[in-house]
Amino acid sequence: MNKRNLETCFSPLLFEPDLHTDSIVVIFDIFRATSSMCTAFEHGAHSIIPVAEVEEARAYKERGFLIAAERDGIILDFADFGNSPYNFTREKVEGKTIIYSTTNGTGIIKLASSARYIVIGSFLNITSLAEWLFTQDNSVLLFCAGWKNRFNLEDTVCAGAVAEKLLNSTLYSTICDSTLAALDLWSMAKDDLRGYIEKAAHRTRLKKNGLDDCIDFCLTADYTRKIPVIKNNILVGDIL
Amino acid sequence: MNKRNLETCFSPLLFEPDLHTDSIVVIFDIFRATSSMCTAFEHGAHSIIPVAEVEEARAYKERGFLIAAERDGIILDFADFGNSPYNFTREKVEGKTIIYSTTNGTGIIKLASSARYIVIGSFLNITSLAEWLFTQDNSVLLFCAGWKNRFNLEDTVCAGAVAEKLLNSTLYSTICDSTLAALDLWSMAKDDLRGYIEKAAHRTRLKKNGLDDCIDFCLTADYTRKIPVIKNNILVGDIL
Repeated sequence: MNKRNLETCFSPLLFEPDLHTDSIVVIFDIFRATSSMCTAFEHGAHSIIPVAEVEEARAYKERGFLIAAERDGIILDFADFGNSPYNFTREKVEGKTIIYSTTNGTGIIKLASSARYIVIGSFLNITSLAEWLFTQDNSVLLFCAGWKNRFNLEDTVCAGAVAEKLLNSTLYSTICDSTLAALDLWSMAKDDLRGYIEKAAHRTRLKKNGLDDCIDFCLTADYTRKIPVIKNNILVGDIL
Repeated sequence: MNKRNLETCFSPLLFEPDLHTDSIVVIFDIFRATSSMCTAFEHGAHSIIPVAEVEEARAYKERGFLIAAERDGIILDFADFGNSPYNFTREKVEGKTIIYSTTNGTGIIKLASSARYIVIGSFLNITSLAEWLFTQDNSVLLFCAGWKNRFNLEDTVCAGAVAEKLLNSTLYSTICDSTLAALDLWSMAKDDLRGYIEKAAHRTRLKKNGLDDCIDFCLTADYTRKIPVIKNNILVGDIL
């Protein structure tokens, strides 16, 4: 049996779409987009439409959709709430379609559009995600969104945690240095994940904007079994 | 006193030239370009002209220059020798100008052309490099050449070793996640550097081409005090 290939990409700028047309691409943007998406589906959201532009979100608002939108940590005046997972309560999102403003996320979804599947990864759904990947006979690309196209530690460490689960099985192999690095960084981080993430530049920025209240939550394993997946440019809550 | 900013870049694709116009850019391509360059100057080379194209190297050959050129591990028929540091013996290079064929290297030198200095880093000159950086009141960018624009472990670990030296002083600070990751990977690698590098994909490739005889040499600290620097697109052996 050929082992499935496991690779990791540290930034949208490093993504090579032609190499991944038959891969499952798992997107990590754990502070906070992909954690919020997992939370929304756990709380019964019907679907999430990622949009890049503020004006696009505003147009959806006028059509009656629920809008999650911020820029630089400030909730936009027309939005229903911001992008923190704490906003996606069952009371607010159950049965609803949510417009989620994310420039970074929509760019990545477009980049990876030729992949077999694009799914959403975070610590919140890590075990469920790994178990589902085991059932799929495809190569896997762990795609770290990074911050402003730069490498970031938090997405890398989460990718490393998934890589560990996959490589602990006999189904996957890797010769990808980025995957090896992610694994090693996860092995350094895992005994004190919060302490490790403390040093991440992104967290410093979150803290500066007073947005770091959800960090502990975003580092929680297995809050949900949901595996959000892109279908026709819309996120739905379960691939199964 | 303001601390000097330390950053790390994992791939030419991630380089942001506008942020580094006053920085010292240190290039790492330790298997084998930057190790070979340090070795050549230790052995008395006068200068090295990096060229991107094979035809450019061939034209220099016709003008009587010494040519180091390979493609995929095969020495080009008109070249005097290949790109291994073992080729750059004192007998061959002392007093000479060498044409060094490196597509990757010339691309990076062009990208970073607005930097304050572009210097060459490797384990071979690591202490001398760090000591010189201490004397310069500039931000530093550790620029990992990577492999085919991808992240690689060996350049990252070497950048991490330099970062450790700089951050152990009080002169530098960093909020760059790439630097923090490089530091952590170096801390995992340093007690058994060869063993750590064994797993690097690049080394696997080198081995496949029978080119791994120089790995131990390239991981040797402080073979030279030379700090090659780019001046007018030509490398000279000493910045001082």
